[in-house]
Amino acid sequence: MYYIIVYDVEEKRVNKVCKLLRRYLHWVQNSVFEGELSEGKLAELKFKLSQIIDPEVDSVIIYTLWGKWKGREVIGLNKNPVDSLI
Amino acid sequence: MYYIIVYDVEEKRVNKVCKLLRRYLHWVQNSVFEGELSEGKLAELKFKLSQIIDPEVDSVIIYTLWGKWKGREVIGLNKNPVDSLI
Repeated sequence: MYYIIVYDVEEKRVNKVCKLLRRYLHWVQNSVFEGELSEGKLAELKFKLSQIIDPEVDSVIIYTLWGKWKGREVIGLNKNPVDSLI
Repeated sequence: MYYIIVYDVEEKRVNKVCKLLRRYLHWVQNSVFEGELSEGKLAELKFKLSQIIDPEVDSVIIYTLWGKWKGREVIGLNKNPVDSLI
């Protein structure tokens, strides 16, 4: 399935969250990842995320999409062009 | 149509971008908005965004979805519960 993951975590945990997500999805922009994942891999990722973040202050949102997005448009700088996404 | 908009802009422009987006969509988390918009309203929003950001350094990504997302899951703090979204 296709996912967009956004996160808003305290500074001291940003690198760890970012490093973990890079192993599963494509970095798109600060605090934003997207890509295809199996449900098993997503479950694994969610478990690891829950081990890193502080649920009292940090927030991670996982959007499950109906297939890939219908459109993706960038205004301004394209920090990670989609065509570089597998 | 349903949209998720994420942005990564220089500090001095964050408030302006956030204030503009609040007039069209629902704030979900820092730098993340979502919601339903007509294509006309989206075109209007995009024009206004392009007047604010510096395209050389700022990045705004507009995801157009096939209807609303299939799923939305929060790990940690839910900064703007979905049920408060119209």
